[in-house]
Amino acid sequence: MGDVTCSIARTVDILSDAWAWLIVRDAYVGVCRFEHLREDLGISGKVLSQRLAALVDAGILTRHPYAERPTRFEYTLTTKGNDLVPILATLVAWGDRWEPTEGGPPMYFEHQDCGAAHVAITCAACGTPATAQTLTVRPGPGGSTGPGTAVIGRRLRGSSRRAPL
Amino acid sequence: MGDVTCSIARTVDILSDAWAWLIVRDAYVGVCRFEHLREDLGISGKVLSQRLAALVDAGILTRHPYAERPTRFEYTLTTKGNDLVPILATLVAWGDRWEPTEGGPPMYFEHQDCGAAHVAITCAACGTPATAQTLTVRPGPGGSTGPGTAVIGRRLRGSSRRAPL
Repeated sequence: MGDVTCSIARTVDILSDAWAWLIVRDAYVGVCRFEHLREDLGISGKVLSQRLAALVDAGILTRHPYAERPTRFEYTLTTKGNDLVPILATLVAWGDRWEPTEGGPPMYFEHQDCGAAHVAITCAACGTPATAQTLTVRPGPGGSTGPGTAVIGRRLRGSSRRAPL
Repeated sequence: MGDVTCSIARTVDILSDAWAWLIVRDAYVGVCRFEHLREDLGISGKVLSQRLAALVDAGILTRHPYAERPTRFEYTLTTKGNDLVPILATLVAWGDRWEPTEGGPPMYFEHQDCGAAHVAITCAACGTPATAQTLTVRPGPGGSTGPGTAVIGRRLRGSSRRAPL
């Protein structure tokens, strides 16, 4: 799916299953060592190795040796990986609202500056909430029509500014 | 993975591959009919049917007949589904920054109220940007220790407020 001309497709292709997001979560919280990740996630070493290698290849994680003989590695988020953390917070907020856990949220993201426990997605210019109702999709300069965008490409190009899509 | 006590796991499990996100994108833009979705995404009717059924089961899409003999359906986002749209906008922004398309962004989300083309993830209380650096993870009341949270559950419970994790 990497050749679909859509930033959603390329992004979600990298983060193609829940393990990738959980590894990002763990790395953010400081669960960085291979053995700790394996214990936390309860997955096989083989599956974990594959996911870690893909995240390193994608530039989301970087790996460092922390022990010799045998060499052991730990994994930390790059700037690109850290840029996923606020998105993770929005996924948590959506899950807490729509797929709640019995007993309340299992964890939450706290804003260190003010202590609040809620993130919002807002317009970067005017600061008001960005919602399905207040957003609209526009064609960008790099759009093309092909698999994954065969109909949407035509529709977006045919849309006039401000018209509901 | 649905039994992992983590809102990330439950959320990403529902949106477990890129097709699910692309279907949400298409439904938002108004590509709602089965045949249009199939043409847009370039996937088989069987794969598309499975993905649509899962999204309807999850309460993200609702389906309505729009023609009889044979009955044809179109799919629209529920309130729960519309709540994913701003997250989609943040995935697009991340992709445009870190996995850019040659020629520029293929599409963008415009804030209808002010015309700006950028969304931000902010603290819902103080309005400043929520980043990996300004957020921290805290244990919530519904947390537990099990597969997917075996180590992180202990670490979070052991963390004192305000301590870096």
